[in-house]
Amino acid sequence: MTKYVYSFGSKKTDGKAEMKNLLGGKGANLAEMSRLNIPAPGGFTITTDCCNDFFANNSHFPPGLKQEVEKALKIVEQEMDMKFGDPKNPLLVSSRSGARMSMPGMMETVLNIGLCTKTIPGLIKKTKNERFVYDSYRRLITMYSDVVMEKAEGIETIDGSGIRNQLDGIMEKLKKKRGVKNDTDLTVEDLKQLCAEYKTQIKKIIGKPFPDNPMKQLWGGIGAVFKSWNGKRAKAYRRIEGIPDNWGTATNVQAMVFGNMGDTSATGVAFTRNPATGDNNFYGEWLSNAQGEDVVAGTRTPNPINETTKNDQNEHLPSLEKAMPKIYKQLYSIQKKLERHYKDMQDIEFTIQEDRLYMLQTRVGKRTGTAAMNMAMDMLKSRLINEKTAVMRVRPDQLDELLHPIVDPKAEEKTNAIAKGLPAGPGGANGQIVFTAEAAVEWEKKGKTVILVREETNPEDVAGMRASSGILTSRGGMTSHAALVARGWGKCCIVGAGMIQVNSSDKKMVIDGKTYKEGDVITLNGTKGIVYKDRLNMIDATENPNFQDYMKLVDKYRKLGVRANADTPGDAKVALEFGAEGIGLFRTEHMFYGEDSDAPLFLLRQMILSGSVAERKKALNKLFKFVKKDIKATLKAMNGKPVTIRLLDPPLHEFVPQDASKLKELATVLGISVNEIQKRGKDLHEVNPMMGHRGVRLGVTYPEVTEMQVRAIFEAAAELNKVKKKALPEIMIPVTSDLNELIDQKQIVEKVYNEVLAKKKIRNIDHLVGTMIEIPRACLLADKMAQAADFFSFGTNDLTQMGFGFSRDDIGGFLGEYLDKNILKADPFQTIDQDGIGQLIEMGVIKGRSTKKDLKIGICGEQGGDPASVEFCFRTGMNYVSCSPYRVPIAKLAAAQAGLAAAATKKTTKKNRRRKK
Amino acid sequence: MTKYVYSFGSKKTDGKAEMKNLLGGKGANLAEMSRLNIPAPGGFTITTDCCNDFFANNSHFPPGLKQEVEKALKIVEQEMDMKFGDPKNPLLVSSRSGARMSMPGMMETVLNIGLCTKTIPGLIKKTKNERFVYDSYRRLITMYSDVVMEKAEGIETIDGSGIRNQLDGIMEKLKKKRGVKNDTDLTVEDLKQLCAEYKTQIKKIIGKPFPDNPMKQLWGGIGAVFKSWNGKRAKAYRRIEGIPDNWGTATNVQAMVFGNMGDTSATGVAFTRNPATGDNNFYGEWLSNAQGEDVVAGTRTPNPINETTKNDQNEHLPSLEKAMPKIYKQLYSIQKKLERHYKDMQDIEFTIQEDRLYMLQTRVGKRTGTAAMNMAMDMLKSRLINEKTAVMRVRPDQLDELLHPIVDPKAEEKTNAIAKGLPAGPGGANGQIVFTAEAAVEWEKKGKTVILVREETNPEDVAGMRASSGILTSRGGMTSHAALVARGWGKCCIVGAGMIQVNSSDKKMVIDGKTYKEGDVITLNGTKGIVYKDRLNMIDATENPNFQDYMKLVDKYRKLGVRANADTPGDAKVALEFGAEGIGLFRTEHMFYGEDSDAPLFLLRQMILSGSVAERKKALNKLFKFVKKDIKATLKAMNGKPVTIRLLDPPLHEFVPQDASKLKELATVLGISVNEIQKRGKDLHEVNPMMGHRGVRLGVTYPEVTEMQVRAIFEAAAELNKVKKKALPEIMIPVTSDLNELIDQKQIVEKVYNEVLAKKKIRNIDHLVGTMIEIPRACLLADKMAQAADFFSFGTNDLTQMGFGFSRDDIGGFLGEYLDKNILKADPFQTIDQDGIGQLIEMGVIKGRSTKKDLKIGICGEQGGDPASVEFCFRTGMNYVSCSPYRVPIAKLAAAQAGLAAAATKKTTKKNRRRKK
Repeated sequence: MTKYVYSFGSKKTDGKAEMKNLLGGKGANLAEMSRLNIPAPGGFTITTDCCNDFFANNSHFPPGLKQEVEKALKIVEQEMDMKFGDPKNPLLVSSRSGARMSMPGMMETVLNIGLCTKTIPGLIKKTKNERFVYDSYRRLITMYSDVVMEKAEGIETIDGSGIRNQLDGIMEKLKKKRGVKNDTDLTVEDLKQLCAEYKTQIKKIIGKPFPDNPMKQLWGGIGAVFKSWNGKRAKAYRRIEGIPDNWGTATNVQAMVFGNMGDTSATGVAFTRNPATGDNNFYGEWLSNAQGEDVVAGTRTPNPINETTKNDQNEHLPSLEKAMPKIYKQLYSIQKKLERHYKDMQDIEFTIQEDRLYMLQTRVGKRTGTAAMNMAMDMLKSRLINEKTAVMRVRPDQLDELLHPIVDPKAEEKTNAIAKGLPAGPGGANGQIVFTAEAAVEWEKKGKTVILVREETNPEDVAGMRASSGILTSRGGMTSHAALVARGWGKCCIVGAGMIQVNSSDKKMVIDGKTYKEGDVITLNGTKGIVYKDRLNMIDATENPNFQDYMKLVDKYRKLGVRANADTPGDAKVALEFGAEGIGLFRTEHMFYGEDSDAPLFLLRQMILSGSVAERKKALNKLFKFVKKDIKATLKAMNGKPVTIRLLDPPLHEFVPQDASKLKELATVLGISVNEIQKRGKDLHEVNPMMGHRGVRLGVTYPEVTEMQVRAIFEAAAELNKVKKKALPEIMIPVTSDLNELIDQKQIVEKVYNEVLAKKKIRNIDHLVGTMIEIPRACLLADKMAQAADFFSFGTNDLTQMGFGFSRDDIGGFLGEYLDKNILKADPFQTIDQDGIGQLIEMGVIKGRSTKKDLKIGICGEQGGDPASVEFCFRTGMNYVSCSPYRVPIAKLAAAQAGLAAAATKKTTKKNRRRKK
Repeated sequence: MTKYVYSFGSKKTDGKAEMKNLLGGKGANLAEMSRLNIPAPGGFTITTDCCNDFFANNSHFPPGLKQEVEKALKIVEQEMDMKFGDPKNPLLVSSRSGARMSMPGMMETVLNIGLCTKTIPGLIKKTKNERFVYDSYRRLITMYSDVVMEKAEGIETIDGSGIRNQLDGIMEKLKKKRGVKNDTDLTVEDLKQLCAEYKTQIKKIIGKPFPDNPMKQLWGGIGAVFKSWNGKRAKAYRRIEGIPDNWGTATNVQAMVFGNMGDTSATGVAFTRNPATGDNNFYGEWLSNAQGEDVVAGTRTPNPINETTKNDQNEHLPSLEKAMPKIYKQLYSIQKKLERHYKDMQDIEFTIQEDRLYMLQTRVGKRTGTAAMNMAMDMLKSRLINEKTAVMRVRPDQLDELLHPIVDPKAEEKTNAIAKGLPAGPGGANGQIVFTAEAAVEWEKKGKTVILVREETNPEDVAGMRASSGILTSRGGMTSHAALVARGWGKCCIVGAGMIQVNSSDKKMVIDGKTYKEGDVITLNGTKGIVYKDRLNMIDATENPNFQDYMKLVDKYRKLGVRANADTPGDAKVALEFGAEGIGLFRTEHMFYGEDSDAPLFLLRQMILSGSVAERKKALNKLFKFVKKDIKATLKAMNGKPVTIRLLDPPLHEFVPQDASKLKELATVLGISVNEIQKRGKDLHEVNPMMGHRGVRLGVTYPEVTEMQVRAIFEAAAELNKVKKKALPEIMIPVTSDLNELIDQKQIVEKVYNEVLAKKKIRNIDHLVGTMIEIPRACLLADKMAQAADFFSFGTNDLTQMGFGFSRDDIGGFLGEYLDKNILKADPFQTIDQDGIGQLIEMGVIKGRSTKKDLKIGICGEQGGDPASVEFCFRTGMNYVSCSPYRVPIAKLAAAQAGLAAAATKKTTKKNRRRKK
């Protein structure tokens, strides 16, 4: 029979760190801590398999679970020397979620399970703290009614009608009546009265009584945790993070220990190193006489854990190091042990109950990109980890943050801060302020840059946080929800800026008596925690000294090539600076967008609207010098690195001018009437231009256009070669779907090549001729296409458009709903749809190489910089990816990690095979 | 070594009828006739392999050919008792093309090879006919200079600058000088003078002398025939007919016999049955004292071969039966023998040289669709062929012609003919007259219906003939170029209407002094050969009594289902009449095109432009009754046969009204301003609507739209069931690309299904829920899609659009050039692109069935009625094809033939396998 329950916190510990998939991160690490003899309250983990079986079984617990739980509970009772439901010495437990990957705040927790009419007197007698017991009871009732009786039953609460809000209302009313401000100011009698009123209200609203039976409470708590896996928030988070639905969560049932049993009790959260900067300092927050949720929820501003890590905001607050030196020392040595053991920065939770330290959790800590890189390099230097591990330690998307802009220090010098807070997410951001997550989403959709300002954030705000360029909260610490989420995304964030009074309902905030309304502009320095009025200038991140070293390491272990997409000589230079090994996509038409000069665009229009081949050739001849100049400068900038030059791709009508004066000018040059030119423009109009007369289709119907471009390329290369400059043009024919198109265009290329050789009196110009694979049929016929191509470059944008039948310009009408309804897991234009479009790509690679074994294959769609897509490209055996210059380091890291991961898998597989022999 | 040369016409005959691929049709049949002891002039065939080797060898003859030809020539000399190049008894030969499939008039021929200064005196002495010898010499010089010295050298002649025109000009000048009208009126001296002048002119224009050496002439002739395989005309014809380039042509060198050696000589062309009607009468044409080209070229109106087949136009002319009764009898028995031997109607050519009959050619004769069917049924009845052969005897596209309209006989009764001619192509046609092939092509492109009127047609006119709905010529007989080509295509055609004076250069024709200009409308009755002024009414072809029997036979051997695409109850009835076994595509949106009433369209617009779900539902509720009524009537008409109902497919903006009054009306109903409604309409605009918000994407974002349609379907079916009427709706979800879309929509279907069951108080409604596979990704993920689909229906229009990235609305800009440059072999929207899109379809079928073994699979794209596509669908294992009602018989025949051909191949393979054992 399947084993569903694993004990920890005692000598009977069954689990270990490697069992994360089965026990969840929290459970596996609790077991591992027990193995390391680190003090943790006893408990047990109900597996993720059990969670899946629970859902498969129509939300009923699988058979056998009851017996296993009862057995494991016995062990906890022995370990803690208490008894669950016992009137004299009652054990209280918590029920917490714990998935394979951390999903902070996305699932449910129930604390203080076991408190009931029968056990309350005994606990009071034992703890001699009636107030504590009723405070705990009040918390249990609130949580339980909300989590187990309402949310787990699928009751959606909106507009504050939920039970939790109702109970909070009762408390607020009582506080008002008593004239007190804090919960802690309420008396024991007040709490007793609250508990009684709570239970009445629950019965009234939910229609069922709050259960007075410990076992009933326990099973309710376990079920609610499982069910929260499929709660709205958890599902939304999984979609964003790409976590599969079938992983499930484990449930951890653990003996309660209390940080709120007076001044010898405390609770805290800490990191073995600074998660924002990576500095090698023990870093954390604690609160005396408090429960864990008080630290995380941000309702009280927590104290610093030690003296070293104090900052401007908290230097006046007491550190644990000073307040409880002995316990701090024990905690310090435990965290050192844990980091050495796990060989990575740990995020730990602890509770001190009456001078005794309990570790509640250890897990690999989330960190900013900067911190991830700095830690990796530091740990490498101290030989805690090796080079390969260091490469694996930074998520490719985290590099994004290192490449993010920061607030211009010069601008900061001249500007006074309007507020200060904790530097929770690095970099800088400016934008218009909004006060609700919904507004953030809406405004962002309209193309605005927004800063989300909240008193504190909660999981319901996630979408709005994502839509914002920066987040500012008036409450909460470095481990508050806002800080955790923002750091996970590398987003600029300041928390705990207490001088800000946020009034969400009136859409304003007040700082020092000055009011800021929705739409006003502010600037955040998330690295320092400073808020400014108005828009301050942004500049590129100053080079992190570790960055160059880290990228060298990455390049050492990387096998997949990384090029950049660049359309101008300027872009080419930037690409080189970012470490590009070539240009994977140079779009000749970019020069026609009129950035430098209108002349090329005018000539292009003249060419397009020509009425005859002769007229067209006249315009092309004039255009030639511009095209050649542009190409030559780019080839020169790349100095012998390959430059893939795509021939004219977009539908011609895109360039037809709309305004009357331009039309008239063109008509004059062409010697025709404005009417006639309008007619010609109209004739070029297409119903579905994306599938119209473009790419190679233009080359076939207007061979003179191909000829002009190819001549420009060869002459540019030849002239560079003549002055001993290397040039490696790769001519790319776009939008092909048949070998015959390639043959047709290659005839032109060869003809022009020979003409240029003759003209320039040289024997050879290094070059390749290949094609963009962006039409599904080209993948299907890749074996044929490869006959006439030196290389393939997958154009995954168009391939995705055609493969899905999704017009990128028009998906706005339904993509949102598709993602919301989970019909698609991700926007296929952001990350390659490996299930579908991926098949076409694999087919293209395999068939192409079946004809030409060493066919050079790359990708130049925008997904070329997306880590998951890079990994896919590596796996299919491509030679390189190409992406925007700015994403080159990200692609490089993704490429290196894909290679290392594949090698590791291979090694493991080999090992296993050897073992079997 | 490869054998390149095969003899015939003697006891040393090597070839036979089965060797068509190697010897071409003509060569194989000449060999077969020799085997049957049918008199034919001796000769030999140079194989199609030799032709391919010739081209592979840079247009040089392969080694060894010279020796083989010389040897074969010796055999001919022995057989004919003459000697090639001999001064006393010279043998003359012809060099003719002969490909695997007949390509009438598309390749070259050289006659009278061997005539030269050395051989002319001997031939004169032998034939005692100096005039004949010089006339033959004149013909040789003309042909040779044109075909061998000019065309075979790739010299393109336009605007009458070619050598042939120049020589004809010399002859015309001489005729004018002599005051004579016909070539035959020229004297021997005239001819001698002509030959001399011709040779001077050739030297002057081409720069080379006309060769005076028989062997040189022979090799020139052989090479020219080979080269004509790659001539412009032949290539264009192959593209239209789908003949592969690598088949090559054979060259037949054959002893010349002369039908122009006086009144005891003659030449003719005949069919063993009437090729236009299928009547079992020996049918043909002949000319006394003439060469074969005179009959085919249409320069002289030929005589009828016998009394039985005389008609109004030729009853005054002498028949061969009367003029040469003995020869006729011999010919008659030979044609009987040939038909019995080949078990099919033969097209034969013969020449009578001084009272001796020679058969020059026999081949399976081209015929109209009507004739093909009538012959098949007649031959079946007389047991000449069996049922399967009968099914194979009619080309599916020939049925088209039987289903063509004819001129309404009632209209004809009341109208006087303006001209009469030979009924060369059946059916009726009316349209505007044009006088050049170019004009026909141009006008047809503009959407006009045209009748091409020519004096006579030639191979250069083929494209124009194709573009015309009917063809009318003033010259030529039933075997003239116009007649042959039109019949091959089943096109309405009248030839030899001698009373018409055609003046192409002035774009007019004159009949009885009355002038008809370009653009005037006439009507042709191609079945009777009558021309009318103005547009006469057309009606459906009267039922051929054989047709129903033939279709029964077809159905007997057919395994693939055939359905029709029908959008209205009326269409459904027509589909049933044409034998459809169900409806494969019922497009619900058709009712919104406002044919019956504007109400549904107005409501649809109201729905589309609604600003909220509530508004939208209001409009949908009103629309419901219209949709239900339409569906119910269609289900009722089909009486239990399956009806595949596609849910709303097109992008909504297609229905947004453009004109102001409609907009205002809508705005009033919706209670909003015209500005607002214009804005809503604009918001719906899409850049690439074909890949936009349509099909299932509408169903996902507007579930209420799906709900309304599904409710209409189920209520309609339930109400029919209640009154004991069968109904089998198959709900088809369009434009899907992911299983989740199907799951999303199926939830709605199931919900509504249960609601309708409850409302109608019934237990069950027979139905299927499936999807249209028309997005490439759906094919790639067909294994997943099949999980939630009862059936797949391939939408090959969209699949072709997305697979190629070709917008059907926009391919006009390049498709013509793609076909001209042979980049694509055919328009992929006409016939399935089996190479590319076919792979997606096969993938879809195989993957779909891998999940659901008995998944029902069909096709409902427009290619469903294209014979080659039907064959493909059969081969991939589909259950049915669906096409326009009118094409159902064609699809049925194609389906039956595909099945029989596959069974035959299987049998042959089995046989071969058994033999090998």
